[in-house]
Amino acid sequence: MCLNRAGLSARGSVVLQMDNIRTSVEKMEKEKTLDLRKKHIGPSCKIFFSHDPIKIVQARGQYMYDEKGQRYLDCINNVAHVGHCHPDVVKAGAQQMELLNTNSRFLHDNLVLFAQRLQATLPDRLSVCYLVNSGSEANDLALRLARQYTGHRDVITLENAYHGHVSSLIDISPYKFHQLSDAERNPFVHVAPSPDVYRGKYRADHPDPATAYADEVKALIDGVQAEGRKIAAFIAESLQSCGGQVVPPVGYFQQVAEHVREAGGVFIADEVQVGFGRVGTNFWAFQLQGEDFVPDIVTMGKPIGNGHPLSCVVTTKEVAEGFVSSGMDYFNTFGGNPVSCAIGLAVLDVIAKEDLQGKALCVGRHLSALLEQLKEEHPLVGDVRGCGLFVGVELVRDRLMLTPATAEAQHVIYKLKEERILLSADGPHRNVLKFKPPMCFTKEDADLVVEKIHLILTELEEGLGLKMSNKAKMENDSIKRKRPSSSLHSRGSSQDVQHAKHIKA
Amino acid sequence: MCLNRAGLSARGSVVLQMDNIRTSVEKMEKEKTLDLRKKHIGPSCKIFFSHDPIKIVQARGQYMYDEKGQRYLDCINNVAHVGHCHPDVVKAGAQQMELLNTNSRFLHDNLVLFAQRLQATLPDRLSVCYLVNSGSEANDLALRLARQYTGHRDVITLENAYHGHVSSLIDISPYKFHQLSDAERNPFVHVAPSPDVYRGKYRADHPDPATAYADEVKALIDGVQAEGRKIAAFIAESLQSCGGQVVPPVGYFQQVAEHVREAGGVFIADEVQVGFGRVGTNFWAFQLQGEDFVPDIVTMGKPIGNGHPLSCVVTTKEVAEGFVSSGMDYFNTFGGNPVSCAIGLAVLDVIAKEDLQGKALCVGRHLSALLEQLKEEHPLVGDVRGCGLFVGVELVRDRLMLTPATAEAQHVIYKLKEERILLSADGPHRNVLKFKPPMCFTKEDADLVVEKIHLILTELEEGLGLKMSNKAKMENDSIKRKRPSSSLHSRGSSQDVQHAKHIKA
Repeated sequence: MCLNRAGLSARGSVVLQMDNIRTSVEKMEKEKTLDLRKKHIGPSCKIFFSHDPIKIVQARGQYMYDEKGQRYLDCINNVAHVGHCHPDVVKAGAQQMELLNTNSRFLHDNLVLFAQRLQATLPDRLSVCYLVNSGSEANDLALRLARQYTGHRDVITLENAYHGHVSSLIDISPYKFHQLSDAERNPFVHVAPSPDVYRGKYRADHPDPATAYADEVKALIDGVQAEGRKIAAFIAESLQSCGGQVVPPVGYFQQVAEHVREAGGVFIADEVQVGFGRVGTNFWAFQLQGEDFVPDIVTMGKPIGNGHPLSCVVTTKEVAEGFVSSGMDYFNTFGGNPVSCAIGLAVLDVIAKEDLQGKALCVGRHLSALLEQLKEEHPLVGDVRGCGLFVGVELVRDRLMLTPATAEAQHVIYKLKEERILLSADGPHRNVLKFKPPMCFTKEDADLVVEKIHLILTELEEGLGLKMSNKAKMENDSIKRKRPSSSLHSRGSSQDVQHAKHIKA
Repeated sequence: MCLNRAGLSARGSVVLQMDNIRTSVEKMEKEKTLDLRKKHIGPSCKIFFSHDPIKIVQARGQYMYDEKGQRYLDCINNVAHVGHCHPDVVKAGAQQMELLNTNSRFLHDNLVLFAQRLQATLPDRLSVCYLVNSGSEANDLALRLARQYTGHRDVITLENAYHGHVSSLIDISPYKFHQLSDAERNPFVHVAPSPDVYRGKYRADHPDPATAYADEVKALIDGVQAEGRKIAAFIAESLQSCGGQVVPPVGYFQQVAEHVREAGGVFIADEVQVGFGRVGTNFWAFQLQGEDFVPDIVTMGKPIGNGHPLSCVVTTKEVAEGFVSSGMDYFNTFGGNPVSCAIGLAVLDVIAKEDLQGKALCVGRHLSALLEQLKEEHPLVGDVRGCGLFVGVELVRDRLMLTPATAEAQHVIYKLKEERILLSADGPHRNVLKFKPPMCFTKEDADLVVEKIHLILTELEEGLGLKMSNKAKMENDSIKRKRPSSSLHSRGSSQDVQHAKHIKA
């Protein structure tokens, strides 16, 4: 069921009210904020729209408000999963803060209830939780679990992957470490091709890209083993986010898991960006691969606490027991405290109560259909892909050469900002428009942002003298013919039919 | 000024009120909580008093309440720095949660105000902040900063040190990695002797333990350099906590910093356990070494958010600019969000408003004086050391051999629990009673816990047939003669006079 109308009306009053509020929450002029930031905040911490940054003082639902009370439509903050400052989440956090906030060395109901509720969303095998404070802490712990359980050390990661900011994760994040020299790279880490059927090694025209990409992992494992090294884990975002909203072909994870387990390693699914119903058809994005796929370790983050620093690692009893055998306790000062868990429980409640997963499916289909239309009209739109409210639009200067339209993507972002719409561009070429809005995003919001992009692209293409070629049109038509229904999620590849079967199943 | 009386009366009414509340916050029977915990929480996550764990449902000030409404005096939770569930902190957090909680890529006043306020507590050189979510994230980032700035890789850490739970920090935490085989240890990490003047290599009877321990670091650096390796950093807790409440001799850090900087490395002071006024005489524990000592990087954690997942790294402009040169941005999803910063600001406000640093000095002196008395009466008490409300009592079976009284320390802890007092034992031999209570801990609280320990030790010693020998008495007397005033902090060493000068200055 799509709760679009109900969601809108329920929020409508709030939004109007917020618009009328003259925000009194600014403590200093924007210029002063910027000056202090330059003085006291590490210059490596970058700001959105650095030429003209935004000062946000308030937010609600899918809207953010600047110091002048101007409203921005938020298409990027997947962290504010159930909507900015959702009253149920705020209330749960505030009430628990007043009662107790302490560490998990004391027994507390919130911790075990939250773990039980998370477990209920996962295959039975994944039954043991570790509550931590960030996706980085979760992925680091996942590596420690994998290494301790397997007794192996080496890790396979994907091209363009991003798994976090602590040292051990920079090591396995090509999105970050591509800037480093070879000498600075970790010899225990091996990079497999990104299973990107648009720009990758095997594309939509390949008869079986899932197997082809999985075979690459197998070959990598064989090479590593030939050097006397041993595989502890394969880690992948269930859908690559910073890497350019990449959707791996169905069946890829199953085959990779088989190869990795055969080598004595485990499969880590990183759901930090994409979990908690965002993909619409499923609660977890790894489930897009089919019910026959179960990872050994799942990591969660960003949306889990709607902005509160909270994350989780879930694994099997076997892996958890293997970790004990090191004799080393695991203690995380803030991890799993009663406030974090109260907030985590409230987020799960809101997802269920407001059927946000169903809404992501419904609004996501609408958004993808609109973006597919854009692709038919605009030569700059090379690919539209994603699931639910996790969608990427790859801009290219040339649909055959796939020349990244990086500057154009930046132009779109900045122009949208003028229209008070927040969108970002990412991917290795920074040419992929990334949609991952709060899950209360509506069809009307989708209409608005796509209409604005249409106008911006029209103007851009006119300036560039770009026109839709007959060939591109034909290509589009041929893709359309392969697509069973326009309401289905876009994949921009011949995998659509197979994917559609899974969604319907 | 000591706010003891005012603090007590202000909290008195709250405490009485809480005692009368029939807590209705338990959602299931304790047995059920324990069962679910066994099922769904990683078995490496240990619980206090594992034979008979405590279920805590509420807390306020220095008191925690179990599911039956029984009140425990909390002597261990330094995280609840300004008192459990301090209303000012709760209010600040709840109000900001309702307004906005988003990432630091948007400009926000709370972030820059908090950074500015933190900077104001530090020497001017330390002016650039990175807000993160945990002490572990802070220390990992400190290592990244040090390595990027120096271009070096190797790290010197102290025996028994604990710096966090992520992979890179297990590597530099002998408290953790002592369980690992040599093959599992990181070749880039070098361990210097703990500057422990009670049990370490150079003791109270040494004419200049500060220089002796610093020379050990110098020798280590020379050895490392002879192998062609280069020092990126020396890292130390300003006062070792898990390592057994160790207070380094005054002047040690200055000399180490000189050696490390000469080798091209930086000095990282880990204030995660001991910062924010706990030591009483100073806001930061590294300042106990004297005003002539300034670290290159300071990491903060636990008390900074009174339990909220918040931490910080502060460094110099030069180190921060060196980090930029990697070309790699630093982004932390939750780090420095408006809610975390509002809470951090509220904690700083409460410390100032309630003069908690002054209170820590005053109550800490009282506590230490009482514990010194215990030492005179009880042969099991080998050493009393610490500053402010960070105090350790080392139990030994024999004052000359320093045989650790590990079982006795555990006995004391369990007996205190029966009296509804929470204390813990730590250190490499788990024989050091660790005091690090919320800073609203009062003289009366100190009287109570020390009286209970006195009774427990009396019974224990009777059972063991231990009596205060004349020799031990003489040793005590000789130490007393060297101590200028009984109200001064204990160091259990001949460093007292030097230390006293610093405190008075």
